Amino acid sequence: MNSEYSEFAKKGLDAELPEIECFENQFKSYTITIIIPEYTSLCPKTGQPDFGTITIEYEPDKWVIELKSLKFYIQAYRNLGIFYENAVNRILHDIVKACKPKWVKVRGEFNPRGGIKSVIEAKYPPSK
Amino acid sequence: MNSEYSEFAKKGLDAELPEIECFENQFKSYTITIIIPEYTSLCPKTGQPDFGTITIEYEPDKWVIELKSLKFYIQAYRNLGIFYENAVNRILHDIVKACKPKWVKVRGEFNPRGGIKSVIEAKYPPSK
Amino acid sequence: MNSEYSEFAKKGLDAELPEIECFENQFKSYTITIIIPEYTSLCPKTGQPDFGTITIEYEPDKWVIELKSLKFYIQAYRNLGIFYENAVNRILHDIVKACKPKWVKVRGEFNPRGGIKSVIEAKYPPSK
Amino acid sequence: MNSEYSEFAKKGLDAELPEIECFENQFKSYTITIIIPEYTSLCPKTGQPDFGTITIEYEPDKWVIELKSLKFYIQAYRNLGIFYENAVNRILHDIVKACKPKWVKVRGEFNPRGGIKSVIEAKYPPSK
Amino acid sequence: MNSEYSEFAKKGLDAELPEIECFENQFKSYTITIIIPEYTSLCPKTGQPDFGTITIEYEPDKWVIELKSLKFYIQAYRNLGIFYENAVNRILHDIVKACKPKWVKVRGEFNPRGGIKSVIEAKYPPSK
Amino acid sequence: MNSEYSEFAKKGLDAELPEIECFENQFKSYTITIIIPEYTSLCPKTGQPDFGTITIEYEPDKWVIELKSLKFYIQAYRNLGIFYENAVNRILHDIVKACKPKWVKVRGEFNPRGGIKSVIEAKYPPSK
Amino acid sequence: MNSEYSEFAKKGLDAELPEIECFENQFKSYTITIIIPEYTSLCPKTGQPDFGTITIEYEPDKWVIELKSLKFYIQAYRNLGIFYENAVNRILHDIVKACKPKWVKVRGEFNPRGGIKSVIEAKYPPSK
Amino acid sequence: MNSEYSEFAKKGLDAELPEIECFENQFKSYTITIIIPEYTSLCPKTGQPDFGTITIEYEPDKWVIELKSLKFYIQAYRNLGIFYENAVNRILHDIVKACKPKWVKVRGEFNPRGGIKSVIEAKYPPSK
Amino acid sequence: MNSEYSEFAKKGLDAELPEIECFENQFKSYTITIIIPEYTSLCPKTGQPDFGTITIEYEPDKWVIELKSLKFYIQAYRNLGIFYENAVNRILHDIVKACKPKWVKVRGEFNPRGGIKSVIEAKYPPSK
Amino acid sequence: MNSEYSEFAKKGLDAELPEIECFENQFKSYTITIIIPEYTSLCPKTGQPDFGTITIEYEPDKWVIELKSLKFYIQAYRNLGIFYENAVNRILHDIVKACKPKWVKVRGEFNPRGGIKSVIEAKYPPSK
Repeated sequence: MNSEYSEFAKKGLDAELPEIECFENQFKSYTITIIIPEYTSLCPKTGQPDFGTITIEYEPDKWVIELKSLKFYIQAYRNLGIFYENAVNRILHDIVKACKPKWVKVRGEFNPRGGIKSVIEAKYPPSK
Repeated sequence: MNSEYSEFAKKGLDAELPEIECFENQFKSYTITIIIPEYTSLCPKTGQPDFGTITIEYEPDKWVIELKSLKFYIQAYRNLGIFYENAVNRILHDIVKACKPKWVKVRGEFNPRGGIKSVIEAKYPPSK
Repeated sequence: MNSEYSEFAKKGLDAELPEIECFENQFKSYTITIIIPEYTSLCPKTGQPDFGTITIEYEPDKWVIELKSLKFYIQAYRNLGIFYENAVNRILHDIVKACKPKWVKVRGEFNPRGGIKSVIEAKYPPSK
Repeated sequence: MNSEYSEFAKKGLDAELPEIECFENQFKSYTITIIIPEYTSLCPKTGQPDFGTITIEYEPDKWVIELKSLKFYIQAYRNLGIFYENAVNRILHDIVKACKPKWVKVRGEFNPRGGIKSVIEAKYPPSK
Repeated sequence: MNSEYSEFAKKGLDAELPEIECFENQFKSYTITIIIPEYTSLCPKTGQPDFGTITIEYEPDKWVIELKSLKFYIQAYRNLGIFYENAVNRILHDIVKACKPKWVKVRGEFNPRGGIKSVIEAKYPPSK
Repeated sequence: MNSEYSEFAKKGLDAELPEIECFENQFKSYTITIIIPEYTSLCPKTGQPDFGTITIEYEPDKWVIELKSLKFYIQAYRNLGIFYENAVNRILHDIVKACKPKWVKVRGEFNPRGGIKSVIEAKYPPSK
Repeated sequence: MNSEYSEFAKKGLDAELPEIECFENQFKSYTITIIIPEYTSLCPKTGQPDFGTITIEYEPDKWVIELKSLKFYIQAYRNLGIFYENAVNRILHDIVKACKPKWVKVRGEFNPRGGIKSVIEAKYPPSK
Repeated sequence: MNSEYSEFAKKGLDAELPEIECFENQFKSYTITIIIPEYTSLCPKTGQPDFGTITIEYEPDKWVIELKSLKFYIQAYRNLGIFYENAVNRILHDIVKACKPKWVKVRGEFNPRGGIKSVIEAKYPPSK
Repeated sequence: MNSEYSEFAKKGLDAELPEIECFENQFKSYTITIIIPEYTSLCPKTGQPDFGTITIEYEPDKWVIELKSLKFYIQAYRNLGIFYENAVNRILHDIVKACKPKWVKVRGEFNPRGGIKSVIEAKYPPSK
Repeated sequence: MNSEYSEFAKKGLDAELPEIECFENQFKSYTITIIIPEYTSLCPKTGQPDFGTITIEYEPDKWVIELKSLKFYIQAYRNLGIFYENAVNRILHDIVKACKPKWVKVRGEFNPRGGIKSVIEAKYPPSK
């Protein structure tokens, strides 16, 4: 284990964030894809800003995500110190909790740092 | 349930729209894709215009959609207050009713609002 | 049935066109894709020219399409009044008759008319 | 059979070409893709030059293709009269003979002639 | 076997390189893609520099690759004489050893040399 | 003069439109470019919708255009019957009246109709 | 002088074509650009079809080109045998005659033939 | 004057920001272009985040901008409420003060809001 | 002077090449641009093939270049050993001699060799 | 003056580098553009590698740059610690010294670091 890193490893995972609101679904057998190219957060170790695009693709069951509340939810990462993997997995977790979709994939494409570009993709339900 | 939203949730779903006309199919085992980059409607909540591209892909059974009537049908959304999900699902529903295809997919890609871009994709027959 | 349309529904399907010539195939297990961005025909209803790209992908069995004869065959649509669906399905039919391929797909991507772009894709043997 | 064509149908298939050399493979479960955008040969009928991109994708078994010898092998088509289908199938055949890969695909994308672009793709082992 | 080549065939495979460090994984069912467009090494035969993009895609099990240590690991190829196939397979091997992922794919896209572009893709666990 | 056209030639030029509001300029020697890809109006002759992108580039003197009022101003063309040339020249005229810029260029790029795309560019002060 | 060519050198220059109609200009100091990607004509020597994009840019004086009549004018080249240079220069000439613009540029970009692409650009008034 | 707007018109112009540091120039007759695609600030009226790309092009005289201090300077806009025009003009002003260049241009390209994209370009010395 | 190079420095400059034929010009004040992406020649030193795109832009005076003869002229470089600079300057010279244009520019964009791409542009009459 | 920076400010400017060789020019009034996308050097402060594209555009007088020697010259920056501005200005200086061109421009476009991309352009003779 890299100890310099571990101290920040859980940062941001339990921060309080605005609620993702939903409304009742009226249809069946369709998917919704939401693309947010204006994601930004802070590196928990250096305090430097990170930038990226978050893409959420899901099939609603009883509830549909209300876009305005999602916008405020994502904006709340702006001054939060959180690593890439944690941000993507937390967004997945919070969406599942809010709207219980049939399935959902969250993808984060982050701007290069030190000449290296990262993409994280998490999904629910987990593959076995 | 987000109450500010719910009051508009069904708006546009039962508006009267021009009929989608069809003509008899002469062939089998082929697909038709129709791309309409000039879709526009109104947000039922704010009255602000929305813009997007509607893509319809289907395999005809006995009937083929007549393009001119489809053009007038889509143009009728111009001054209709209707949410994205409702528009895509209603177009799907009206196409199924008009031409009873073997299968059809309707996809709406909408211009970003507040830095967020949405894509809705519905299909018939529904997946189980 | 749209009556304004039906009068032209079969136009061009039985027009006499140049023969698609073939030569003997010498190999097995390969595919040929032919892309023709210079397709043009006439709308049977308005007489206005249509433009598009025809893509033919097939796996030869005993015969391979001779490209020069295919060029003349496609050029013969230039002054033919024929709808999109009919053109794509007729090309498929004439290729099957000429070279009896293991399988073939014909795709027509047509330039937008009235803000609407159409793509037709037909295949042989038909899917069940 | 198109007789004007048949006289050239086998041209280039038995021309003597430089050997494709190989070296011993040290790894397993990987693929190699080689892209050669500078392929040129002559039309056996008209003597006019043809241009294209050859892409070779394969999974090595015991032997790996040595790139320099492949370069000289491909350059030897420069003044060879040979049709597209024959070139792609001969390259496939010569690679199989030289390095006996687990599988290989050869794809030739040729520059348009008379407004028509051709793509040929052959593979080994042949599909059944 | 090409003897001129064989003398360099194993060069770089046992060179000492910086360790790829890891930290503990906190999530399940997600993938990480790392894109490094600034890879450079030396040709073991000619001493000339090679350039390329390395893409690593994997599903973490218990450990996640620490990006800073990966950056230093890749930078250590800068003055190392090593062939393309060897570099890609060694990176795969070193990642598997460091973080024991559920699966991993390493892809190297190298700049053209002599008009020929090469792409190498290796994966773990090996396909059967 | 084409008489079929002349009856509509001035349509939309004197329609009442929302005011373009301004605020006081605080700086000098800079330009502002505003790009509006969501312009739509109606053809005065056929009633069919037109779509396009309006680009306004200007150097402010004492006043700067307030973007929200400009948005409502452009949205008011949505159900206005007006030709391309008239729309671009009227927008130029209304901007000059509202903010008296040192100079301004208005450019309208309109979606193809009947296979023909139009671009109109007007400027103030007029060239001599 | 190439004699094989000279016999066709003036073909199409005096063919009767539909009139380009105009309507009265209402504005000053603006330009109009018309882009027609669906131009097609015949080679006067071989009878083979040519394809290209015609771009007309002009500053109207007293008259503006009516687009529908221009569409029919350009469509009339469809079955006309005429060389590239002649088509572009004749279009220039006919526009000058029809609407007497302050200036006009006509540009024809033609699809490659025999691996060679041609662009012709003519202007009025001629440069000295 | 739009009064709703005026209350925020000067916001951010006198906020304290980190210093832009410089080092001594060693060369003459060259230009430096710095592109920062990760600019973000807040709308002073709504508190909503804005995003954009800042491009600085200048010819150094005695001093060259030190990039690290410029990075911290731009990052300080992250939680600053400031309008587009004010941000671009303030950056220009602060650069002129810090490094007294022969000339400098600052360009801000901002992400669309309400379907409208804005570009602001300011320069020093001002044109007359 | 690099002596290894000088021995080949004039190679290809006096090789006999097919004549560029012309026909009489009928128009004034227009330009012709000819783009030939299928240029290939040999390196005089190594015998290795070079590839590139030749672009010829000129204003005809009394004579226009006949395209077919130009095609054969360019094809004659296929097996000619000649450096980039020499090829571009010789093409310029031969065009000037053949059609005495008002002015002409010849541009050669050559495929990268050893990671270096070259572009040569020559013009007549020479700038002073 | 930023003191942390100044200690490295001249690093690399007087390093010994391979000679840029030339050969005698045979033509007049033409330009040569050389594009080298595989430039890499080290940051003198951090030791981290930098990457970029160097573009050299010049009009030869009596001497032309020999490309192979230029390749070795540029490769010598690989393990040299040197800042962007210094590299571009030194390359300009060494080219002027080697081939005394009528004029030359050197442009370096460097990969982003910390989200900031830099472009340096120097020219000879210097503008006044």
